[in-house]
Amino acid sequence: MEPALGTWEAIDTLRTVRAFADRPLEGWALERILNAGRRAGSSKNLQRWAFIVCRDRDHLRELSTTGPWAGHLAGAAVAVALVSPDPRAEGAPLSIAFDLGRAAQNMVLAAWELGIGSAPATIYEHQRAGDLLGIPPEMHFEYLLSFGYPAEPAVLSAPNRAGGRRPLAELVHEERW
Amino acid sequence: MEPALGTWEAIDTLRTVRAFADRPLEGWALERILNAGRRAGSSKNLQRWAFIVCRDRDHLRELSTTGPWAGHLAGAAVAVALVSPDPRAEGAPLSIAFDLGRAAQNMVLAAWELGIGSAPATIYEHQRAGDLLGIPPEMHFEYLLSFGYPAEPAVLSAPNRAGGRRPLAELVHEERW
Repeated sequence: MEPALGTWEAIDTLRTVRAFADRPLEGWALERILNAGRRAGSSKNLQRWAFIVCRDRDHLRELSTTGPWAGHLAGAAVAVALVSPDPRAEGAPLSIAFDLGRAAQNMVLAAWELGIGSAPATIYEHQRAGDLLGIPPEMHFEYLLSFGYPAEPAVLSAPNRAGGRRPLAELVHEERW
Repeated sequence: MEPALGTWEAIDTLRTVRAFADRPLEGWALERILNAGRRAGSSKNLQRWAFIVCRDRDHLRELSTTGPWAGHLAGAAVAVALVSPDPRAEGAPLSIAFDLGRAAQNMVLAAWELGIGSAPATIYEHQRAGDLLGIPPEMHFEYLLSFGYPAEPAVLSAPNRAGGRRPLAELVHEERW
């Protein structure tokens, strides 16, 4: 029923999808994506995150106007807002944003195994986006993830773009910098 | 040869491993783990990360004393320091730490598929750890990841700990908070 994808294969083939088919996500698929985020490890197991699931088309369209590169939200089957305590508050640890990244990666990989694409959107108009989502003033959100079946299914098996990532030799040091 | 693990299965079964067998990682396995980090998506594809690979036992032992819960580094087959621009610098975007979390999650999942466990360590003594790794003053590092085959292989198939994560109903909101 589901195209089980090996873990490395999912990591290696994952790419950003910004154009989505007009097809909803099955309830169990969405639940798995959310559970993937929920299952992520976090500093001291604090799990400082909450997810707002948006499916209403008008709501998605409004959200898509809160950042200059957030247009893909308008056509997503589902958008998930990643909400956390304010990572910029005085004394806030780096692990708030780091852990949110771990949860997000779990979500996009779990989706990809199911043939569901995703793209992150960074919110620029925090006040307006926060109002649209009813975020409490003490909470923060910076990212929305779009999910949906790709408009072009060929993207699921497209080869990696040459030059898309820096080579290992540029990134890796042995024992010391 | 390798126990290919479906993506969701890896996400769902992953747990932290802090006790490692006295067995090195195969070169190709380490390379895959590093490539998994390298392949992660990042804001504007900036890839603001570098990885320092530590395998020298004395070096690992010294690193294990730079944080109160970093003891697992002493017995790791490999530790990978995650180095980035300073996420606390004036005007630094949250995406530095968020993207590092995405890369870290890719690494630990790719390892898990190969039966290799991992644990993150947060560095508390930045100056001393930075000296041990020769980190340039303009760069920052907060996390080291331990990797190794588990001392107790049963951990690879252990059931999830009840109550280890908050339930979805506590985390998920529909359309608005």
